[in-house]
Amino acid sequence: MAKIIPILRSKEGFEKKIKDLTNLCKEDLESINTLILEKLDSSVPLIHEIASYLVLSGGKRLRPLLTSACYHLNLNNIKKSLNHIGLAAAVEFIHAATLLHDDVVDESKNRRGNLTSNEVWGNKTSVLVGDFLFSRAFQLMTKYGNIEVLKILSDTSVIISEGEVLELSNDKDLEINENIYFDVINAKTASLFSAACQVGGISAEGTKNEIIALKSFGSNFGMVFQLIDDAIDYSSSKNNMGKNTGDDFKEGKITLPIILAYGRSNKSEKKFWNRTIANLNQKEGDFEEALSIIHKYDCINDTIRRAEHFGNVAIDSLDVYKDNKYKECLVNLTLGSIQRIN
Amino acid sequence: MAKIIPILRSKEGFEKKIKDLTNLCKEDLESINTLILEKLDSSVPLIHEIASYLVLSGGKRLRPLLTSACYHLNLNNIKKSLNHIGLAAAVEFIHAATLLHDDVVDESKNRRGNLTSNEVWGNKTSVLVGDFLFSRAFQLMTKYGNIEVLKILSDTSVIISEGEVLELSNDKDLEINENIYFDVINAKTASLFSAACQVGGISAEGTKNEIIALKSFGSNFGMVFQLIDDAIDYSSSKNNMGKNTGDDFKEGKITLPIILAYGRSNKSEKKFWNRTIANLNQKEGDFEEALSIIHKYDCINDTIRRAEHFGNVAIDSLDVYKDNKYKECLVNLTLGSIQRIN
Repeated sequence: MAKIIPILRSKEGFEKKIKDLTNLCKEDLESINTLILEKLDSSVPLIHEIASYLVLSGGKRLRPLLTSACYHLNLNNIKKSLNHIGLAAAVEFIHAATLLHDDVVDESKNRRGNLTSNEVWGNKTSVLVGDFLFSRAFQLMTKYGNIEVLKILSDTSVIISEGEVLELSNDKDLEINENIYFDVINAKTASLFSAACQVGGISAEGTKNEIIALKSFGSNFGMVFQLIDDAIDYSSSKNNMGKNTGDDFKEGKITLPIILAYGRSNKSEKKFWNRTIANLNQKEGDFEEALSIIHKYDCINDTIRRAEHFGNVAIDSLDVYKDNKYKECLVNLTLGSIQRIN
Repeated sequence: MAKIIPILRSKEGFEKKIKDLTNLCKEDLESINTLILEKLDSSVPLIHEIASYLVLSGGKRLRPLLTSACYHLNLNNIKKSLNHIGLAAAVEFIHAATLLHDDVVDESKNRRGNLTSNEVWGNKTSVLVGDFLFSRAFQLMTKYGNIEVLKILSDTSVIISEGEVLELSNDKDLEINENIYFDVINAKTASLFSAACQVGGISAEGTKNEIIALKSFGSNFGMVFQLIDDAIDYSSSKNNMGKNTGDDFKEGKITLPIILAYGRSNKSEKKFWNRTIANLNQKEGDFEEALSIIHKYDCINDTIRRAEHFGNVAIDSLDVYKDNKYKECLVNLTLGSIQRIN
């Protein structure tokens, strides 16, 4: 049954693993990108402009790649239909819509090294173009999905928006329970990874057990992805997939390293977190002080340990599949996403 | 085929016609309201609170009523399924989602005599709860709709968001062509009325011709609804379904009365519109001055004349149906919606 695969840290980066996956799913990815390009079109030029700005800004297409890999994983490489291409595009559109609305809600100024759409075109347009992308996703689902797929993707959209509001409800609450935080990132991030994997498997007519496995793989992989993202923000090494260290701190975002650190902090350290995070009153040297408290209590290593737990569950989920190159690639991607921080 | 039904102005109000429709579809409306209540539930209390605030704030449920009426219109009163109940709720959720996002984009402070959600809970939460309602709508569609219904409702969502962005693109452009304005309100308002009617008919397995008729009825009825709404804002009589005269002017909204007036204005009047609407620099007495220019050029009567045109097309569309109480009610509702302004 499930065997524990030890997670070895290596210097081989996450980027390399994504490149491997990209190469493996090259043909699909080209079709997905062509469809995305086609569906970004609108009779309203401003929509085309903003949607293209975001969707064509060099994202990794990680979710569509997962759809493609999970399709082929189930298919043993025999091409059956092209529905998974349309569904992969739908997943990417849902992702893009949530990014647009997220950036408005978080008042973010930068994404992937570019100005955010809300910075360039304002909040109003970003909200409405997000609605457009969301609607486009549903159009694609409707065209390429069966009833099972439609249920998964519409349920996922509900879960994502619930997660967003749950996060907002707990805004600035440093005493948020770690499990509630897991609920938030499970809803906000992991659920769409999970859906991306499931719809790939369903398009290839995977068995019930296989789809359950993909559901688990996707959501646990998503947890890894988010937790490592959280950890990177407080890691001292640079060059971690373009993410800037300290962004979460500057925005006063409450992520797992902060939750762990706050719980372990003494009275004066708690005061520090309240000033810098809850009241967002920061001055020079505060980030360094935050790092020192976080490392004092080993919160980055513990965040990575949590991620490793989810990573192990993700990898074990794939046990229902015989070994093949797609499975190998997904396992390596999971390992690589943890190694991102090394 | 089509016969012109003369539209007689009478004192009998729109409210009475809606009440007639409500009574006729009483049983359905109760089921729809029960389902709406059930689907407003969320594990996140803030979502339930905000969504309920908006959805249960005493809207007329005009769109679900149209779904119900168009269902029975096709069914000659023989009950076949209850899918139209779920779809009517989906339509109302799409409507509610667009209201939430609209109010954020328009920075509105009041709706139906209450503070808007963005005034009470802020823009961020309103954006996210709008996403929730939108996702709920898709969940309902997926559960109760067939492929035809899914296509109509997802296409309509794309059209609505395109209309919203098109409107924003033309913001403050007093020289906007009347036809572009028609495109905007057709997308923003009429398309959802049209979808509401179509999904009712499809649930009752109407013929292709019948669904085409309902599509036309709904969109033309929607145009009437919006144009009369535009006109009421500059009408001198009070008590028009709670709408406050002057709201559009205060917000600098460019609606048909303004478009017509600006086109017909002389140089100094054009200057007035540019100051008050384009630059939103208003002082006491400006609304009275606006009314005087609008009435000088007969722009309210001409707006009503445009509405009458769409009303006639709407009513004639129903010619494919034999006379029955649902048809009568829909015809009277269309007439009543024009009479709203008297």
